[in-house]
Amino acid sequence: MPSTLPPLLYTDTHASADMLYYGGVAVHDPFVAFGARGKKYTVQGALEFGRVKRTGRFDVVLSREDWLEKARAKFGPRAGIPEMILCLAREFGAKGFRIPDDFPAGLYAKLTRAGLRLQFADGLLFPERELKTAAEAAAIRAGNHLSAVGFATAEKILRAARIKGRTLVHRGETLTSERLRFLIDVAIKEAGGEARDTIVAGGDQACDPHERGSGPLRPHELIILDIFPRHEASGYYGDMTRTYLKGRAREVQRRLFATVHSAQRQAIRAIRAGIDGRDIHQAVVEFFQREGYETKRGANGATGFFHGTGHSLGLAVHDPGARLGAVSCKLRADAVVTVEPGLYYPGLGGCRIEDVVQVTATGSKMLSRHPYDWEIR
Amino acid sequence: MPSTLPPLLYTDTHASADMLYYGGVAVHDPFVAFGARGKKYTVQGALEFGRVKRTGRFDVVLSREDWLEKARAKFGPRAGIPEMILCLAREFGAKGFRIPDDFPAGLYAKLTRAGLRLQFADGLLFPERELKTAAEAAAIRAGNHLSAVGFATAEKILRAARIKGRTLVHRGETLTSERLRFLIDVAIKEAGGEARDTIVAGGDQACDPHERGSGPLRPHELIILDIFPRHEASGYYGDMTRTYLKGRAREVQRRLFATVHSAQRQAIRAIRAGIDGRDIHQAVVEFFQREGYETKRGANGATGFFHGTGHSLGLAVHDPGARLGAVSCKLRADAVVTVEPGLYYPGLGGCRIEDVVQVTATGSKMLSRHPYDWEIR
Repeated sequence: MPSTLPPLLYTDTHASADMLYYGGVAVHDPFVAFGARGKKYTVQGALEFGRVKRTGRFDVVLSREDWLEKARAKFGPRAGIPEMILCLAREFGAKGFRIPDDFPAGLYAKLTRAGLRLQFADGLLFPERELKTAAEAAAIRAGNHLSAVGFATAEKILRAARIKGRTLVHRGETLTSERLRFLIDVAIKEAGGEARDTIVAGGDQACDPHERGSGPLRPHELIILDIFPRHEASGYYGDMTRTYLKGRAREVQRRLFATVHSAQRQAIRAIRAGIDGRDIHQAVVEFFQREGYETKRGANGATGFFHGTGHSLGLAVHDPGARLGAVSCKLRADAVVTVEPGLYYPGLGGCRIEDVVQVTATGSKMLSRHPYDWEIR
Repeated sequence: MPSTLPPLLYTDTHASADMLYYGGVAVHDPFVAFGARGKKYTVQGALEFGRVKRTGRFDVVLSREDWLEKARAKFGPRAGIPEMILCLAREFGAKGFRIPDDFPAGLYAKLTRAGLRLQFADGLLFPERELKTAAEAAAIRAGNHLSAVGFATAEKILRAARIKGRTLVHRGETLTSERLRFLIDVAIKEAGGEARDTIVAGGDQACDPHERGSGPLRPHELIILDIFPRHEASGYYGDMTRTYLKGRAREVQRRLFATVHSAQRQAIRAIRAGIDGRDIHQAVVEFFQREGYETKRGANGATGFFHGTGHSLGLAVHDPGARLGAVSCKLRADAVVTVEPGLYYPGLGGCRIEDVVQVTATGSKMLSRHPYDWEIR
């Protein structure tokens, strides 16, 4: 039976997308938010009070200074956040709260010791966060549009670059991962996004899928671009990956690209409400095996395909909920997931292709769009 | 008596600067790290394994796949992170762990229920994080240099801008908070930093100290620029604020600026090891009162001086530890704090000036440097 206790949060909106989802306003220091009698409350210090009241989705914004004073009147001069929450619970008639699994343990221990009933969400604090409304899907689409702005920028630069021995030269300078990342991120910023940790990884660097990439980009080598910007106006993320090669591709690289692209198309076609994300992932694993691409784990890492096929996307890049991976997870209509198979072999390089879809009753809707042309002469 | 139990963390390095401090490598999904027998351990999935092993400060990197398998062999197929931690504690002979106050409560409840001893740090998990080494101070200085790059960029643009009625025109376009923020952030990115949420707030907008600012910037009005970029190479932050005015300042604005600047200089002069941060803050409060600048709290926010005078700075913008605020806090040598008094009056505007110092036995060392020229004709 789903819990009917209202939520209680104590965190900041950088650390917790739940908090951002609940209040709809970014605050960078931990603060209290809770539900009571169908209303959303928050407690804010003078520094944030006006802004949160004006721009947030809370029904009531209380003053932290006032409520700390009340807590001190009742519990003594050392009273802090725990005592303030006890006062608030009493004042607003809350019998207990539902808390996220990542609620701060120190506060949890103090509140339960004082007799406040706290129930773990044990999964999603806001189960509705997994299923995206039309407005949320539009915001994710806008995020992916920013990723596409990044790809278009990169393609233009790679096209303009000249091959000079083992380097690429752009506007008289050696083209590096850092430089290309800078130009991508600036183009995205100009378009209203915030790209962090954009991956521009060529050659063997790309075989560590979370390596950002550094140093000169090489001709005739695969280059993975994974761009996951936040759409500033809404707070939602895009997340797309394309793989490129500047120069002449070898046949083994072409086959690698074609295999990953084919795996991705098959996975997207298989998605619909009711199917298990694990089955989608398992089909990709088996397809790669059948095509002769083995996965091995060794002491210094793994080769082949060794990450999940997709994850939920929303107010966080790795949003909670739907997954296409090793763990069973029934896909529900309106969930939004990435689809991003990849293959990584030091010596040959890495290839990953990632798009984003929203699950529907009969299939899925693409929320990302950008061509897959990858060989740039 | 200080705890001798080794630390246990389960979080990601975006949410937790403690984790970044401990392992020295950024990982964006939650992971396990712990100490045992004087060594630092972490558990990483295949996706991060190689990179963390190569670039992190951990003594031992264990495979999540292997350890989840061990946990499942012992606890059954539904075993997850809690069971894995129990296996690790047994294998590496840990009798218990010291945990941060923001350790995830769900995991805390499961581990303690299973009999693992967990002790709250009840304050700083790594008390040494408050006191900065020479290398850390240099990294913070580099962060502040990035802030200064932002100010230099802004000054150049404000100087070049033409006043046209109630707007500023730069390169043929109305200069807005958004545009100036973009140009500042790009200059910082080019210089090796990552500026997020840079504040460019003019007129009454600046009276909400955490309002980022939007829309056209006005001539003859105070404009607060608060720039707190992360220095990419080290992960440490800078944090500086300057207040500007393009056009002609009125006498009330000049007096406001002079008063804030004087308060800041006095506060910096008063800092040394052993002094209470509350006394520094209280002196600023009283100075403003003496000068006739009253602080008032109302239903829609506050006016006057209603935030702390300074906070610790390091791997987080609001680092834990030293504070110059309403709560007692003895300053220790090597702590790094911001000094940032401000005054805010709708109608008149806001003014804040912020620098960063490292506390020494006899005074302090400036870790930030940029002129205070503020009237731009």
